[in-house]
Amino acid sequence: MTFEFTLEAEQGQARAGIFHTPHGPVHTPVFAPVGTQATVKAVEPRELTELGASLLLANTYHLHLRPGDELIRDLGGLHQFMAWDGPILTDSGGFQVFSLAELNKIDSDGVTFRDHLGGSLRRLTPESSIQIQHHLGADVIMAFDQCPVPDDRGVVEAAVERTHRWLIRSAEEHARSGDVSRQALFGIVQGGIFMDLRAASARFVSDVDLPGYAVGGLAVGETKAQMYTTLEQTTPLLPRHKPRYLMGVGSPEDLVHGVARGVDIFDCVLPTRVARNGAALTRQGRINMRNQQYAADPSPLEPGCTCYTCTHFSRAYIRHLVRSSEILAHQLLSLHNLHLLLTLMREMRAAIFSGTFADYAAAFLEGYSLPGPHKSAKIPLNV
Amino acid sequence: MTFEFTLEAEQGQARAGIFHTPHGPVHTPVFAPVGTQATVKAVEPRELTELGASLLLANTYHLHLRPGDELIRDLGGLHQFMAWDGPILTDSGGFQVFSLAELNKIDSDGVTFRDHLGGSLRRLTPESSIQIQHHLGADVIMAFDQCPVPDDRGVVEAAVERTHRWLIRSAEEHARSGDVSRQALFGIVQGGIFMDLRAASARFVSDVDLPGYAVGGLAVGETKAQMYTTLEQTTPLLPRHKPRYLMGVGSPEDLVHGVARGVDIFDCVLPTRVARNGAALTRQGRINMRNQQYAADPSPLEPGCTCYTCTHFSRAYIRHLVRSSEILAHQLLSLHNLHLLLTLMREMRAAIFSGTFADYAAAFLEGYSLPGPHKSAKIPLNV
Repeated sequence: MTFEFTLEAEQGQARAGIFHTPHGPVHTPVFAPVGTQATVKAVEPRELTELGASLLLANTYHLHLRPGDELIRDLGGLHQFMAWDGPILTDSGGFQVFSLAELNKIDSDGVTFRDHLGGSLRRLTPESSIQIQHHLGADVIMAFDQCPVPDDRGVVEAAVERTHRWLIRSAEEHARSGDVSRQALFGIVQGGIFMDLRAASARFVSDVDLPGYAVGGLAVGETKAQMYTTLEQTTPLLPRHKPRYLMGVGSPEDLVHGVARGVDIFDCVLPTRVARNGAALTRQGRINMRNQQYAADPSPLEPGCTCYTCTHFSRAYIRHLVRSSEILAHQLLSLHNLHLLLTLMREMRAAIFSGTFADYAAAFLEGYSLPGPHKSAKIPLNV
Repeated sequence: MTFEFTLEAEQGQARAGIFHTPHGPVHTPVFAPVGTQATVKAVEPRELTELGASLLLANTYHLHLRPGDELIRDLGGLHQFMAWDGPILTDSGGFQVFSLAELNKIDSDGVTFRDHLGGSLRRLTPESSIQIQHHLGADVIMAFDQCPVPDDRGVVEAAVERTHRWLIRSAEEHARSGDVSRQALFGIVQGGIFMDLRAASARFVSDVDLPGYAVGGLAVGETKAQMYTTLEQTTPLLPRHKPRYLMGVGSPEDLVHGVARGVDIFDCVLPTRVARNGAALTRQGRINMRNQQYAADPSPLEPGCTCYTCTHFSRAYIRHLVRSSEILAHQLLSLHNLHLLLTLMREMRAAIFSGTFADYAAAFLEGYSLPGPHKSAKIPLNV
């Protein structure tokens, strides 16, 4: 049944399930590649299919500004526009209004902002965000929320309250002008790193009967330890038989820690952004392909990897492409990085079924070196 | 047999044949996509295979500078380096030394230049060009020549003479240090737009027994009429049973005019460069996808086209990608543009077999609008 979530297996907090959408099933835990402007950067839709991607994310703010959500509606909706026949999720645009727009002013009714492309003054409210998402036509749409800095209690408190009021208005607008059989509205829990606020928000949001719930406001400046702690105290408060979506998170270590803490859905620009910066994600950690050490290295990015990149090209070649600013570098690194994350999700799903998730996760994290600032922050898995 | 050219059919000057190489047969007439830095920009090798590309060109100058021809040799050669198991042709580097290097000084022995990447002083001679091409390991390598401006008789005369002397030295070096069963050396006819010089050059170059011959020094500033006239007076002077390669030429109209004048092999950056500029090649002419007229256009780049791009994406979507500076725009436009040229070559080959080439070529040119400055220069096909 559309938007039903079938819980198939659990191990500790980790869960495996199937989330049914009008564009097919999503097997969870799942990582959703991000196609901000209706394209996963440097990756063709047929390649996403080949990689086993099921759910994609697209950004409401960007598409509202360009090419315009009404144009996309008139052309048959986002699926047809970007030639992706699988499930799509759109965010509400709220996060981008605050992080990208050149000027923004929030009030109780919504946000006024100057768009970063044309410079025009625009306004987004819970109602208009939902309407825009109706035009785009994604399978999953998000309530309009306010994502605050995570550690200023006064700011977070006000944002939680506003997020709750806006959730009600988002749900009412969706019920009024939307088609709940075609688009599922997810609510968002806020609360920064304050557990009492998270708990109150989880309770409030869960009380609104929705097909799924998201944990927002993480990976926005807090430490990894704070993020994991907040997560493990929040997810148990969400309905067990609804999918849980951790927004904007997707490094290998965060995916493992997130699944261990009961998250079903993730999205992140990381694999494709890292690729465009010339780096590869591997099971041992991130490697910078500009490094001289790969100049004559005939081995693939990750020995044993079965992706197109690793089965055809050497590190030496990829380094040459990166240094030469060749577009193919972005393509090949993006394919590999997405392959790793999507494979990791499939492996975790299988491990949950076979009851070996704790061992799998511990082994993965043991072999994985965290990048730069997090190097010393190996955090207990807590499963 | 390796490097044998089997002439299969002729119609007027137009020819269909098979050129046998160590990496498989090349069915002619053929268009070779250009992979300057060991990658056809924004296109994966598996996609080139899918498009039906057989022969690729790579640039000796670029690869000599970066990553270095000895590195490529040590990694198994260019085929393995760029994961292209089909035939490859490398140019001699001479043209790039003059067009790209920051400073160059020609003498009777070779060219001294400052490379445009690192700024170091380097030298290229017929011998070193051939040695570099040995390291790269392409199936077809080119004699080191001087490509002059086409219409200064004194300059052209000197360049022809030098090109002839350098051809002998190129052939001697290839015989001395190369493997003629693995790499075929092609000689190059020069002579600008001066028919007596072209004729003398064609005679001289043909007298050196080589597996193939190229017409160089065209599409470098002369008019299209001059180019076609020069070509139709030059190709009949070349050995009938050897492949003829027109260097650096590849607009749709030039391919048709070239085949009509007896050319078997073409190469050009045009389809992928035009793509990166946001334009599509179609059978009606070039279209600029930034144009407002495509903003809501649900039709494919070229109705009826069977390429991946045209069977999945609308002009409106491509325009959105171009305006958003998305890498996928380069990918999808490159795929389409290459598909058109490769299809055009296959259609011309079939038409030569069926004796309908003259009609086919006339009909194609009739429907095709030349871009910008050439709009009024419809030139007789002359077949």
